[in-house]
Amino acid sequence: MESYLVFKDLAIIIVFAKFFGIVARKLKAPQVVGEIVAGLLIGPSVLGLVAQTDFLSGMAEIGVILLMFTAGLETNLSDLKKTGLKSCLIACAGVFVPLVFGTLLFMFFYGFHPMGTEGFYRALFVGVIITATSVSITVETLREMGKLKGEIGTTIVSAAIIDDVIGIVVLSFVIGFKNPDSNPVSVIWNTVVFFSIAIVSGYIIYKIFKKLSKRYPHKRRISIMGLALCLVFSYIAERYFGIADITGAFVAGVILCNLRDSEYIAEQMDLNSYILFAPLFFASIGLKTQISEMSWGLLAFSVVFVIVALLSKIIGCGLMGRLCGYRGRDCLKIGVGMMTRGEVALIVAQKGLSVGMLDSKYFTSVILLIIVSSVLTPIVLKMLFKKDESTQVTV
Amino acid sequence: MESYLVFKDLAIIIVFAKFFGIVARKLKAPQVVGEIVAGLLIGPSVLGLVAQTDFLSGMAEIGVILLMFTAGLETNLSDLKKTGLKSCLIACAGVFVPLVFGTLLFMFFYGFHPMGTEGFYRALFVGVIITATSVSITVETLREMGKLKGEIGTTIVSAAIIDDVIGIVVLSFVIGFKNPDSNPVSVIWNTVVFFSIAIVSGYIIYKIFKKLSKRYPHKRRISIMGLALCLVFSYIAERYFGIADITGAFVAGVILCNLRDSEYIAEQMDLNSYILFAPLFFASIGLKTQISEMSWGLLAFSVVFVIVALLSKIIGCGLMGRLCGYRGRDCLKIGVGMMTRGEVALIVAQKGLSVGMLDSKYFTSVILLIIVSSVLTPIVLKMLFKKDESTQVTV
Repeated sequence: MESYLVFKDLAIIIVFAKFFGIVARKLKAPQVVGEIVAGLLIGPSVLGLVAQTDFLSGMAEIGVILLMFTAGLETNLSDLKKTGLKSCLIACAGVFVPLVFGTLLFMFFYGFHPMGTEGFYRALFVGVIITATSVSITVETLREMGKLKGEIGTTIVSAAIIDDVIGIVVLSFVIGFKNPDSNPVSVIWNTVVFFSIAIVSGYIIYKIFKKLSKRYPHKRRISIMGLALCLVFSYIAERYFGIADITGAFVAGVILCNLRDSEYIAEQMDLNSYILFAPLFFASIGLKTQISEMSWGLLAFSVVFVIVALLSKIIGCGLMGRLCGYRGRDCLKIGVGMMTRGEVALIVAQKGLSVGMLDSKYFTSVILLIIVSSVLTPIVLKMLFKKDESTQVTV
Repeated sequence: MESYLVFKDLAIIIVFAKFFGIVARKLKAPQVVGEIVAGLLIGPSVLGLVAQTDFLSGMAEIGVILLMFTAGLETNLSDLKKTGLKSCLIACAGVFVPLVFGTLLFMFFYGFHPMGTEGFYRALFVGVIITATSVSITVETLREMGKLKGEIGTTIVSAAIIDDVIGIVVLSFVIGFKNPDSNPVSVIWNTVVFFSIAIVSGYIIYKIFKKLSKRYPHKRRISIMGLALCLVFSYIAERYFGIADITGAFVAGVILCNLRDSEYIAEQMDLNSYILFAPLFFASIGLKTQISEMSWGLLAFSVVFVIVALLSKIIGCGLMGRLCGYRGRDCLKIGVGMMTRGEVALIVAQKGLSVGMLDSKYFTSVILLIIVSSVLTPIVLKMLFKKDESTQVTV
């Protein structure tokens, strides 16, 4: 690979993402929407200026990790404790309702099959795909509005993290029932062990960082070590426990969130991701889409699929939110904040493809869901928050 | 490619590079040396923890670009004007002497051949490899010592840039004589056209940035647009003019160096490169080395090759510096500052391999030259500057 070829792609992505980001902001929509539109525009579907490469998806992956690490750093642990049980219940409902609705949708389109049959599992897998919330776009939107640290923000982020874990457990279960290689008991075991190790090692790591931070306050080495911790946790989570790397990155952030220098680290990570990695990630979502592959039958399924995926999250999370005592509009915010799907849905779909539980053509539906939810969520969220308060300092 | 695998490599590189960087600093050697040693240690030659991948070399390439862009941003144009002719003469001598010495060295080891024969060109090519100075490590060392903007610093950086251009012209000439595809006249033409376009478009770009900078002072979009400019110039230089991408990045930096916000942009680029890209670049130099491939015959050649490469630069640039009126110790600083070889020497060697003018085994000699010069230059430079002044604020 001639490495200078990468520069062209990066330059095009940065210029377009920044330009459309500013346009989106001028139109009162979040910057993120503009960046996704930029990716769609320069991607194979429209202008064809940039194609997804291993290098770009690697960079985008670093972008996701940095976003989740920063979100973890900005977590308020005492808030998390306050919303802990509620978040857990919301996450459970947010997994269960889409799982059932997604399964029924596929059966409605392609025929009902009794439990335990091949057809049943194929339908169930479509439900699994729409269980995993991708919180990065919601996080970015909430941060832009300065709402990330509020009660709703913390509830959404916590629920999304728990939802991610539950979603991956469900995925492993479904694959486990079909594939004798994957053992559901070991999946539960892995999850429990990962979080136990994270809590114990996290406590020790926090103490070490606290000492370092006292000795070298506001020194770049703290940020660099933080970044290394984030990378290590992402890697270990995915490699040894089968848990999504973004969960690892978030946990690494949470470990350091009570540090005196946590804001300093978050600032430096934010700068790194803001200039290069985050625009790359959001543009890459647009890049992945190939509109031309659509047929009318698939389009019909995809449209209903997207609607069901979005509504089932809003219904599941919103209703459970109501049961947990949130007022109506806040339930809607939680439901909308949870309805975004992202790279996790794609990873799940890819896994389904590789184990033979999903046809490759449904990939387009998943990408459509990611695009629609990524574009809709920030706009609707902003509208919901705007209606509440008319004056609010934006970052 | 499973993208999370990248995280492991990045984490290992960051941790080792940072650790050895700090150790190097404690030992009064520049951080860069520690980072290269870290790369050597974790690479295939010693621990084998990390192997060079396309992704890592792409990231390292971005690191080089960012370093050169920042160096360009920190250029003082009036200083460059002052040292312009001197730098040019020093660069010419710094190309000519190594070219002759390198050719003679190869002939001394492997037999003399008359001008115009295959053997003559093979020997000449070894000379070509050692013409191109890689200034990044010198720049990093000078910046660390706060000497980048001084007269010696500017002379070295300017001479290295001119040297780079002359080196590439010489390379194209030598290949051109052997290969009818590459035309020496068009090479000269390309170089002239590139710099003419850079000056004209640079003036317009500078005016646009000046307006933007006045309208949005200290806004991140200035940095992002600066980064985009750097990427575009790197790409265009290499893709359309056959000039090294790092020259393009440096020129982009020089275009913006008189901007009021140039320091702000440089700061943001520096932060980006400091946390991730620069350690990656320096560690990747260490990574590229495979000590095990050495035979005794090749080792003997390599050792003499390294000595000749280093001394010929010091002699060429130093003597010309003396003729230009610099005092003895400053001539030595210039010579030592110019003796580093880096990625350009590797790129030249790769080109020689691909056109059949170089045997692959001499690659090891080039890598040895890069390592030795990269490790020696900062240490010797620091010693030379230290002897001059005992009290100096380091960055």
